[in-house]
Amino acid sequence: MKSIGVHLMWDIHKVESDIISYEKDIAPVMEHIISLTTLSIENYSSKQFEPVGVTSIYLLSESHLSIHTWPEHGYLAIDLFSCVPIESDKITEYLKTLYQSEDVKMTQVMRGKSREMDTK
Amino acid sequence: MKSIGVHLMWDIHKVESDIISYEKDIAPVMEHIISLTTLSIENYSSKQFEPVGVTSIYLLSESHLSIHTWPEHGYLAIDLFSCVPIESDKITEYLKTLYQSEDVKMTQVMRGKSREMDTK
Repeated sequence: MKSIGVHLMWDIHKVESDIISYEKDIAPVMEHIISLTTLSIENYSSKQFEPVGVTSIYLLSESHLSIHTWPEHGYLAIDLFSCVPIESDKITEYLKTLYQSEDVKMTQVMRGKSREMDTK
Repeated sequence: MKSIGVHLMWDIHKVESDIISYEKDIAPVMEHIISLTTLSIENYSSKQFEPVGVTSIYLLSESHLSIHTWPEHGYLAIDLFSCVPIESDKITEYLKTLYQSEDVKMTQVMRGKSREMDTK
């Protein structure tokens, strides 16, 4: 099926709270994920919640990358919406190693159908 | 099941290209969606693609709202990730009326499980 975009979601549990509490530890992770792709950053916004917890969003030429962390639950959610193909396995492996968690779930949703497909 | 967040995705096809081509027409839609919720805006970023197409992302106190439009396909994708409950039906009705499309698909994904649930 020909889709317009691919939406990848990582739900990561059982993560040490300390390493997902502050923006300084999240920004390098997001940048590393982008380095594993061909995506280009257009804009970046981030919010440090008090006392802990971070939201960071990258507006990309090819859609967006977001992260939300809930240190109190040892949980973070990463979303990558892209209109170009992504090698998701490389990102999943990076996240498993980084967060030393085996509770990493990746969900892929195909988004939209091209007009080309509609007319066939 | 007790989740940390709810992720709502709207995939809307068969939309008149002219009304999803430019940022000036997208910002009011996003603001109206937020007005149908109890969500609070922390930050906003947007990109007008050339010749047409828009990405807008709102960083919210309760997660994020994003929109990507592909006027050449008559398609737009809206995502709302929230850690508070959302009355999604109201938003779906608004979008159907606004874009005069019956090809509006809403997908709901529950994101994360609370530690409270883990220990039960």
